[in-house]
Amino acid sequence: MVAVAASQAQSGRDWQPIIAAFVAIVGEDAVVRRKEELLVYECDGLTSYRERPAIVVLPRTTEEVAAVVRVCYENDVAFVPRGSGTGLSGGALPISECVLITTSVMRQIIDIDYDNQQVVVQPGVINNWVTQAVSGDGFYYAPDPSSQIICSIGGNVAENSGGVHCLKYGVTTNHVLGLKVVTPTGAIVELGGEILEMPGYDLTGVFVGSEGMLGIATEITLRILKAPESVKVLLADFMDVEAAGATVSAIIAAGIIPGGMEMMDNMSINAVEDVVKTNCYPRDAAAILLVEVDGLEIEATVNAQRVVEICRHHGARNVTVATDPADRDTLWKGRKAAFAAMGKMSPDYYVQDGVIPRTQLQYVLREIASLGQKHGYDVANVFHAGDGNLHPLILYNNAVPGELEKVEELGGDILRLCVEVGGSLSGEHGIGAEKRCYMPDMFSAADMATMQLVKQAFDPKQIANPTKLFPTPKTCGEGARAVAAKQFPDVDRF
Amino acid sequence: MVAVAASQAQSGRDWQPIIAAFVAIVGEDAVVRRKEELLVYECDGLTSYRERPAIVVLPRTTEEVAAVVRVCYENDVAFVPRGSGTGLSGGALPISECVLITTSVMRQIIDIDYDNQQVVVQPGVINNWVTQAVSGDGFYYAPDPSSQIICSIGGNVAENSGGVHCLKYGVTTNHVLGLKVVTPTGAIVELGGEILEMPGYDLTGVFVGSEGMLGIATEITLRILKAPESVKVLLADFMDVEAAGATVSAIIAAGIIPGGMEMMDNMSINAVEDVVKTNCYPRDAAAILLVEVDGLEIEATVNAQRVVEICRHHGARNVTVATDPADRDTLWKGRKAAFAAMGKMSPDYYVQDGVIPRTQLQYVLREIASLGQKHGYDVANVFHAGDGNLHPLILYNNAVPGELEKVEELGGDILRLCVEVGGSLSGEHGIGAEKRCYMPDMFSAADMATMQLVKQAFDPKQIANPTKLFPTPKTCGEGARAVAAKQFPDVDRF
Repeated sequence: MVAVAASQAQSGRDWQPIIAAFVAIVGEDAVVRRKEELLVYECDGLTSYRERPAIVVLPRTTEEVAAVVRVCYENDVAFVPRGSGTGLSGGALPISECVLITTSVMRQIIDIDYDNQQVVVQPGVINNWVTQAVSGDGFYYAPDPSSQIICSIGGNVAENSGGVHCLKYGVTTNHVLGLKVVTPTGAIVELGGEILEMPGYDLTGVFVGSEGMLGIATEITLRILKAPESVKVLLADFMDVEAAGATVSAIIAAGIIPGGMEMMDNMSINAVEDVVKTNCYPRDAAAILLVEVDGLEIEATVNAQRVVEICRHHGARNVTVATDPADRDTLWKGRKAAFAAMGKMSPDYYVQDGVIPRTQLQYVLREIASLGQKHGYDVANVFHAGDGNLHPLILYNNAVPGELEKVEELGGDILRLCVEVGGSLSGEHGIGAEKRCYMPDMFSAADMATMQLVKQAFDPKQIANPTKLFPTPKTCGEGARAVAAKQFPDVDRF
Repeated sequence: MVAVAASQAQSGRDWQPIIAAFVAIVGEDAVVRRKEELLVYECDGLTSYRERPAIVVLPRTTEEVAAVVRVCYENDVAFVPRGSGTGLSGGALPISECVLITTSVMRQIIDIDYDNQQVVVQPGVINNWVTQAVSGDGFYYAPDPSSQIICSIGGNVAENSGGVHCLKYGVTTNHVLGLKVVTPTGAIVELGGEILEMPGYDLTGVFVGSEGMLGIATEITLRILKAPESVKVLLADFMDVEAAGATVSAIIAAGIIPGGMEMMDNMSINAVEDVVKTNCYPRDAAAILLVEVDGLEIEATVNAQRVVEICRHHGARNVTVATDPADRDTLWKGRKAAFAAMGKMSPDYYVQDGVIPRTQLQYVLREIASLGQKHGYDVANVFHAGDGNLHPLILYNNAVPGELEKVEELGGDILRLCVEVGGSLSGEHGIGAEKRCYMPDMFSAADMATMQLVKQAFDPKQIANPTKLFPTPKTCGEGARAVAAKQFPDVDRF
């Protein structure tokens, strides 16, 4: 159902006039086309997939982005938007013969408005620059992906990124008030605005998380929050995983919404202690919970005490409470380095990003362990327990031929398990190129056709980041063919 | 640009086969077509506009809604969805020769899931039935429009309704997790789901607030919240409006987000005291603030004390704090009855629903007063001060010919003022039939064209609630004609 990207069908294309048009818009230096320079753009954070783009363009302004997109539109050339290229689902994976439009030089913080608690940024601004710019005045930007020192706000918008603090504060879409967007036809459009309550269709919401398929955000208005008066971090360790899972549900059921609530299993604990040596995470624990409570001093104190009691009631062996910033950082340090630590334990790891209802936590963790055994791989778990966003890490060796395919099969089984218990294929990494073949496990043909109608409305020539999100028979085999064949009443218009 | 509804062009239509088709789907009793029975459906809460539908259909299930819509689709008949008909912007105003599809008999609460804090309801379920159904177990549904004892969840979804508690807890869109929807082509589609973090385009967000123009929601999954341990309500009175406005900003700037923060001016205070006789609101005050703080007992106590201090610091004359439920209700009673009280002060009133940045509160209130003087009307103000959502009430007499038009002109000036200071045409009532002519004051032609592309994607025949939201030259005159003429690159496809 997704049209094949125009460029794929035209590999004999004469790029010279297109390059000349780009040079006229952005200048010689901002049009990359030498093979060795294109190498770094071959993949994003999903390094197992690679494809070289034909050209990389680095515009500096909204007008330049619009003019570049317009050239693509007029010449039927597919383009792939890219921020910092740290995405984990291949959302910025080039397709052959495409133009990669990267926003990495659009790095200006345009406006800071404390009275209305908002900032306006260009898309290439790095996530934690926003907090850095406003923290001196007691504010911060809430969404905090693990990659926050390198990922860009534009990429966060494309993938609707999350982070440790999403349990209480929501994901990117909850913090984007407005967008200036270049649509795939090259038009400049304003979506949303400074005001939270806007009439008309909520196209800001559609755009956030649309994985670069509805256009390129060139100015983003973000909500900033007042930093809480007090933050406390608790570390509780458990001798069995089920008890830790039950504690998570009990904390929420008590009406406490922690700023973050993370869980790590024994394998993750040991990986972290081997590499980071925090000396805080007990190596013999089946699981640890890291719980952050924030708010007024009195509120954080009372809630921390209640969390301690709930943890003890559910069999926690020890509970440590850290109040001052250095102690808090020590407790968090291992969690934040967990993925990197895995990389030192195993030649490669494959990280999944499924979501499950919190109440299914214990069952799903058991099932993941048994799926790992069945497929013959170790699976470590480090995840956002509070919102049921799992990150199973499958350890493997990519140098062994055929291993990646087997690991992807196990990853697929885990995702299907998440969907079966009423969950979701992705919590914060997006579908991208990686998970589109699983879409039919979660969405009906009619559901996906409705999304495609919206895609078609924005992108009539299907040139904006094709080959993402939607399954196609070519890559996803018979399953996708069946979906494509089962037409929605009006999809035959496309 | 908006296609004229098919039915408008075909007033000679033979309705008999269509009626027969409806009767076959929903039965004889659920198809209303006698003139005197149709009378009650002629308008919604915006009673100054009236139009009789050709037929009213009352389906009971998703399948019946789909079949009814399919008949409309196949016969090119426009349909208007309707919930309880309490909307204030004419979103459910029939158009001549249309089918009005009302969901008022779809009143089942389908599922309550406390573990995952969600309920599934049919669209005709009344807003406060949801809270009633779960309050015994310590939960509640947050969005609370003034009409909550009569308005339906389906209507709340269509208009993205707000209420007193939206400052802290957000509007309807922040509480809708998933939707089963009948699209304007008659397809049944699932948008979103039980999980907050969903991949794919966020079509749930687009649908919420789409004013019945993208289809009819037939099952709605709502988030319910744990009731706070403690709630306190503060009443502060001020001798000048500016001081009250400054207090609102200061409370937010202190990092306190009250559950609700409402303001009433002297005219509203006196109207309420004349009618409701609360004996709490001082008649000589220029303005009062009602501030509700909630959370843990200790948190509410501390925050109430901080609010008292901020109010005093900004010149409040008296500050009363109510802790027990009966005292809280007494303080709220006048605010909740304010619109009704206005109805007793003046033969008619016209309520506006603009939003402004909180920091512009003092300036805008001054300007509204002077606009009122200029046009020769009294304007009372009762509003959600915390989120800058104004509800100026223009008092007038509809029996005097020409008055409504003059009042609408003043209302238009107020809305334009809101937009000029960076605000919005609507906070919670929607655009509907009432405010579509103002859309070009807020949105560019390209912005609106993008919305229309999405509308067209869902509704290729433009049969779902036409004549709402978008301006048309016929009703909105030359301004709209200019907008329509200034074509967006691809709008000429329609």
